[in-house]
Amino acid sequence: MAEENVIFVGKKPTMNYVLAIVTQFNNNSTSRIVIKARGKAISKAVDIAEITRHKFIQDAKYDEIKLDTESLQGEKGESNVSSIEIVLTR
Amino acid sequence: MAEENVIFVGKKPTMNYVLAIVTQFNNNSTSRIVIKARGKAISKAVDIAEITRHKFIQDAKYDEIKLDTESLQGEKGESNVSSIEIVLTR
Repeated sequence: MAEENVIFVGKKPTMNYVLAIVTQFNNNSTSRIVIKARGKAISKAVDIAEITRHKFIQDAKYDEIKLDTESLQGEKGESNVSSIEIVLTR
Repeated sequence: MAEENVIFVGKKPTMNYVLAIVTQFNNNSTSRIVIKARGKAISKAVDIAEITRHKFIQDAKYDEIKLDTESLQGEKGESNVSSIEIVLTR
């Protein structure tokens, strides 16, 4: 059930993710959404969280911000990538 | 005095910043370093913090992680950019 409120940030435009989050907050009576991103998408995840808070859901707060490192299996063996987890609550 | 322990992440290679942080922790008997970045450099700031913690200063912890939005005056008028502030303590 918790997984429903997780947004994985990838290659789509920033506003797609913002609107997905705003919709979830407004329609599903969700009070907690987790934004996850890895590598270069981390900057976009921060944009998404900030735009959501400043333009759409003014009463949303950062409940928790976690940084971590994940190991990925690639063609050239294992590589490490940083990740972020931003928990928004209202 | 606090400003001495702030690292602004820009266009240099990731490891330059990591080594600057490790040096400050080891030489200056500093127990608190703030890593700041804006826009696309946010991903690099997270890499820097994670590499510092996992490879060099294992007892460093995240004291605080703050996200914010800053207004920049550019040629085309004002624009907003996201920022991150990562506080590392040991």
